[in-house]
Amino acid sequence: MTDTHSVTLTPTDDSLPLGFQWAATRAGIKASGNLDLALAVAPAGATAAVMYTRNQVVAAPVTVGREHIAHSKGRVHAVLINSGNANCANGAQGIAACRASCDSAAAALGCVAQEIFPSSTGIIGVPLPAEKLTAAIPAAIAGLGDDAEHAKLFARAIMTTDTRPKTALASFEVSGKTVHIFGTCKGAGMIGPQVGPPHATMLVYLFTDIGVCAEELQAILQTAVEPSFNCISIDGDTSTNDTVLLLASGAGGVTMDEARAEFKAALDAVCQSLAFQIVDDGEGVTHVVTLAVTGARSEAEARQVAHSIANSPLCKTAWSSGDPNWGRILAAAGYSGVSFDPARVSIHIGKYPVFEHGMRSPSFDEAATHRHMLEREYTIHFDLGQGTAGCRFITCDLTAEYVSINADYST
Amino acid sequence: MTDTHSVTLTPTDDSLPLGFQWAATRAGIKASGNLDLALAVAPAGATAAVMYTRNQVVAAPVTVGREHIAHSKGRVHAVLINSGNANCANGAQGIAACRASCDSAAAALGCVAQEIFPSSTGIIGVPLPAEKLTAAIPAAIAGLGDDAEHAKLFARAIMTTDTRPKTALASFEVSGKTVHIFGTCKGAGMIGPQVGPPHATMLVYLFTDIGVCAEELQAILQTAVEPSFNCISIDGDTSTNDTVLLLASGAGGVTMDEARAEFKAALDAVCQSLAFQIVDDGEGVTHVVTLAVTGARSEAEARQVAHSIANSPLCKTAWSSGDPNWGRILAAAGYSGVSFDPARVSIHIGKYPVFEHGMRSPSFDEAATHRHMLEREYTIHFDLGQGTAGCRFITCDLTAEYVSINADYST
Repeated sequence: MTDTHSVTLTPTDDSLPLGFQWAATRAGIKASGNLDLALAVAPAGATAAVMYTRNQVVAAPVTVGREHIAHSKGRVHAVLINSGNANCANGAQGIAACRASCDSAAAALGCVAQEIFPSSTGIIGVPLPAEKLTAAIPAAIAGLGDDAEHAKLFARAIMTTDTRPKTALASFEVSGKTVHIFGTCKGAGMIGPQVGPPHATMLVYLFTDIGVCAEELQAILQTAVEPSFNCISIDGDTSTNDTVLLLASGAGGVTMDEARAEFKAALDAVCQSLAFQIVDDGEGVTHVVTLAVTGARSEAEARQVAHSIANSPLCKTAWSSGDPNWGRILAAAGYSGVSFDPARVSIHIGKYPVFEHGMRSPSFDEAATHRHMLEREYTIHFDLGQGTAGCRFITCDLTAEYVSINADYST
Repeated sequence: MTDTHSVTLTPTDDSLPLGFQWAATRAGIKASGNLDLALAVAPAGATAAVMYTRNQVVAAPVTVGREHIAHSKGRVHAVLINSGNANCANGAQGIAACRASCDSAAAALGCVAQEIFPSSTGIIGVPLPAEKLTAAIPAAIAGLGDDAEHAKLFARAIMTTDTRPKTALASFEVSGKTVHIFGTCKGAGMIGPQVGPPHATMLVYLFTDIGVCAEELQAILQTAVEPSFNCISIDGDTSTNDTVLLLASGAGGVTMDEARAEFKAALDAVCQSLAFQIVDDGEGVTHVVTLAVTGARSEAEARQVAHSIANSPLCKTAWSSGDPNWGRILAAAGYSGVSFDPARVSIHIGKYPVFEHGMRSPSFDEAATHRHMLEREYTIHFDLGQGTAGCRFITCDLTAEYVSINADYST
């Protein structure tokens, strides 16, 4: 686990940002009867920044959320999330269901519908029962609270097949006042076997009490997302619902101008912790592998090489058995589309050299390298030998358990 | 199996092209002791066309083969193939080993080294024992023959973990003379558990007795490879050694000018049969899925969408259990990079509609669709609804057996 020394993983009452309340309840969307409605409210409103999936096919809440953020000019009063149904590929009916639940929440909270930010995760192609959400909203509102207990319930309610809730917090002092950041996410796990096509989704909610305008918040979020959530991969499939939302209440009394560098560092640390937690909790994962690509001509090329290695089924299956198979790594880099000279490449697994000067390293110690790869977490260093740019990318192995989970189909 | 009605799968004495001889022997490169040296000779020479892997990392025989074809201006006297060692990532030593074995073959056959076309497939990163090849060449030459028995031995000697040899033949008459095409290939299976990193490779050898110049043969080969070998995928990994070689002896007495359209059709059929056989024999494959993409603005966009679906681990795992999971198919198309409107997309699995007008088809019959997907072979039709271009792409499911085979690492 990297760069997270300043981050804590469990919410406490005094580590949460001011200006927010959280709640969770059961709307009856999940067949399991588990928590499936999460609500976050900024009673005095919050400035919002958001990044969405790049998938051409987007769920109804992505379409509606985009409209709302544009209309409200980046102001959000509440976030309304349901798990158990992605409300994707439901046509006009899906859009109507999303609007109806936002309308209900807005009426009950006394704001305009465009200040409600909707999210959904779960089954694709099954109509979302908006009436169940509407019916559950009063209970959610009645249950709002600003302490750790409530934040934890919120984190739990957004889960689908995640095996555990994922949270990360950071804070720092500025002239006697404290800036807090609280983040929670659900990972790219699959929905369990049900009628209708399940799909993976990453949802990330970040809350802070710093004061900032929407334009700057958006720029800061994009900078934080690139090296964290955009540098992880479980199976390479990009969901229709992926969303990263950052809300700033301004309730802490510190403005961005007073703490820009510290805020960026803290946000980076929270995002990188959450990104790591998503991979660590991926379906069937037994090894979390950090790819450290260096010696690239540009960061984009480093990312392209890392992405190709991270998503290679041959690399991923080799990692599942601790096979120091540098041939597969080299070949995956070779088809990444980035040009390079194999004779200048060097590959290390942990501290162990495996490939240098166009051939297997003369000091290749297969047994020691294999033993190192039996650790749950390790790093593969890939130096392209043609520049000074690089990137870190977090990925995982591909196991028979991943296949079983995602092949599981019971009718 | 599609478009192969004019193709036969098993060589017979009178279906082979004139002007070639084949042989195979044991050079001792495969630990199993199986056939591992294949030799094809055109005693009067042949015109050659060749297409290589697009991987940046290429094996020594790819580098040397390119030089030879360039130097000989597309003339080949013999093809020398070893299986069991890919001679890749071996640095200058690998190049020297390849040259040494070509020199030996040329001396024994009485031609120049640049008329020897080398290929290797097997383990990456382990030095190729050129002396074993050199020692075995005389026996291979002594065993040359032009009948079906010899062609079958050749097809068998290029195998690595293929479970069966792959051959396809086509012929047609022109003014009382016959043009023959014989093709054989080894598939994208993995090398068994051994020291050193194994890797997948596709090698294809096509022989014909038509008369043609090198430039035209190259153009015809490229046209045939695009919709066949470039439209298949098992795991999306591109090898360092992939090679498609087409040799034309001219010994049949028919020239390309007399039979251009028929030759192209016959070559297409042979290539498509071999491409299908490669996927059908892929590691752990239980379902061969043809993606028929239509309604695209261009063939390139159709191919891009098909490629994205074909390599999606979520789609591939769903296919392994016959899950009619159109949500994953739609999502994989959505992140292909091709822009489209989901509301205009329609998806059919076989004849069964699953997605239309932006939502699950009203006539979706889940049970019937699932039953259809339990067949070993079926087609998924994906219509983008925005043009007249399309493509066919052959892929397969991802099974726990694939993972076990490729994770198998025994030291």
